[in-house]
Amino acid sequence: MKRDSVSPTDLLQVARSGNRHAVGRLLSLVEKGGTIADEVAATTHPLSGDARIIGITGPPGSGKSTLVSQLLKVITQAGLKPAVIAVDPSSPLTGGAILGDRVRIDATDTGTFIRSIATRGHAGGLALGVPGGVRVLDAVGYDPIIIETVGVGQVEVDVTATADTTIVVANPGTGDAVQANKAGLLEVADIFVVNKSDLAGADDARRDLELMLDLSHMTGQEDPTGRRPPIVMANSLDGSGSIELWSAIVAHGNHLVSTGQIKGRRAARARAELHSRAADRLLAALDQTIDSPAGRAIVDALQNKDISPTEASDQLIRPILRQD
Amino acid sequence: MKRDSVSPTDLLQVARSGNRHAVGRLLSLVEKGGTIADEVAATTHPLSGDARIIGITGPPGSGKSTLVSQLLKVITQAGLKPAVIAVDPSSPLTGGAILGDRVRIDATDTGTFIRSIATRGHAGGLALGVPGGVRVLDAVGYDPIIIETVGVGQVEVDVTATADTTIVVANPGTGDAVQANKAGLLEVADIFVVNKSDLAGADDARRDLELMLDLSHMTGQEDPTGRRPPIVMANSLDGSGSIELWSAIVAHGNHLVSTGQIKGRRAARARAELHSRAADRLLAALDQTIDSPAGRAIVDALQNKDISPTEASDQLIRPILRQD
Repeated sequence: MKRDSVSPTDLLQVARSGNRHAVGRLLSLVEKGGTIADEVAATTHPLSGDARIIGITGPPGSGKSTLVSQLLKVITQAGLKPAVIAVDPSSPLTGGAILGDRVRIDATDTGTFIRSIATRGHAGGLALGVPGGVRVLDAVGYDPIIIETVGVGQVEVDVTATADTTIVVANPGTGDAVQANKAGLLEVADIFVVNKSDLAGADDARRDLELMLDLSHMTGQEDPTGRRPPIVMANSLDGSGSIELWSAIVAHGNHLVSTGQIKGRRAARARAELHSRAADRLLAALDQTIDSPAGRAIVDALQNKDISPTEASDQLIRPILRQD
Repeated sequence: MKRDSVSPTDLLQVARSGNRHAVGRLLSLVEKGGTIADEVAATTHPLSGDARIIGITGPPGSGKSTLVSQLLKVITQAGLKPAVIAVDPSSPLTGGAILGDRVRIDATDTGTFIRSIATRGHAGGLALGVPGGVRVLDAVGYDPIIIETVGVGQVEVDVTATADTTIVVANPGTGDAVQANKAGLLEVADIFVVNKSDLAGADDARRDLELMLDLSHMTGQEDPTGRRPPIVMANSLDGSGSIELWSAIVAHGNHLVSTGQIKGRRAARARAELHSRAADRLLAALDQTIDSPAGRAIVDALQNKDISPTEASDQLIRPILRQD
């Protein structure tokens, strides 16, 4: 097919000249994975690394998408060129996006580039499509890049491995703060948003968060620089709070730069992506080995109780792991 | 300490004589991991493999725990000796159980052994504590063994890798069926329960499930033997439906035996545990390498754009993966 014969280098050039279609094709190549995704990564890597990455997470129904829509208006009014990656949890069996039909972020007026990426790949971690996609958008010139995830779990915590600034959204009256705390999200939040601040219980939700921040301060889990995450009250239906949210994001970015923490965050991001890539390859080697005739013989021996579970894993690992 | 000097073999002997305290200690050793867990696995493996394993999953608040309590009454009245492993999702950061404070299954009258195990370890999969714990309970003589998980996601789908019979619980009026379908749970359910059948919309929930089963039949995703998962209407508050549920479990067990499918399920279970064990070891080797001086140099080179992401992962993998 002719479309596939365009090289990533050519596509990137066209994308950088403002062609959104070319951006979409680069992102599709990244999602495809394999050699072509590697080529896109190699092409876009030298041109990336400067965009601000903002992660935003919270439970389903907490109004993240409308909040992002309001935030996009403020960002574009500030003369910036934002892009959004919406991470959809994919079905573990079918690989398809679970929330493929969810309400889309409204960015019709803003010219923002928006793309959904399904989580896939190893280890429940962020799909390689996310760092790869961020790199494409960064190389094309989008800044800031917003990564939106749904839910409260490992994927959401992993976002922070990719983001400079992580925003956790909670709603009044839902116990979101307690859930977020239990899931470890409090420990990674740089900014909290109590969304739907018009609802009853908004002040209680704020107090819950303040209390938890007090506790984490007492237990010495706070930011080493002493920064305390601000809590922004927002109502994404009328847009109130979105200017305050953008101000808090900018302030946090300045804080990262002035304290030198930005370097640590970006090193952590590089490490996390490298870890994902390497883990994918190790687990691919494992899948291949366990389904080979030798691997099946080991499973049989385990099931027949000829060998213990530890012996079985020793035997399975032997041809995979280099042991000098 | 003297307690630690008792060998797994001795503990198992005491546990098999009916000492519940010894069962608890064996399970603690399994959860501890490492060499001692390997020893417990080696000791209990030869005596296990016969117990029926029943997985039960559904969203938080769907009444699984009370349903299990009712089911336990029916099972013990049938003269059997059941045990329950309740899998708590753990916080990705703290490693603690998120639902440590959740309502416990009531089994005060039944003599059932009940234990909570937190998910941990690699890949978002079931903790190794689960297959290890099942093996202990099986070797001690518990049968059936019920594994209860909370939520709709990868962990829940993984339960089926361990269970002979998987039960998916839905509630009326919640869209649970749609959620379960999207998460791939419909594809793995052997039995459905519409719990809280006294609520309005119970018949609708049943129809939703029937419709989805019709669709999966049309798309050829049904059981190769043509079996259609039954839908049991239950109300765990008054216990109605629990006898029907146990009957459905027994019938499914007989179906697995008569069709020979039981062999495939148990081979899949052995393979899944082996995969988990081997993956844990591969990822431990990766963690060690990426945080070594050589690994940090690769992360630095990636960040400085001296090498591409693919080159970085090639370099990182080289000392880990045997490549003949």
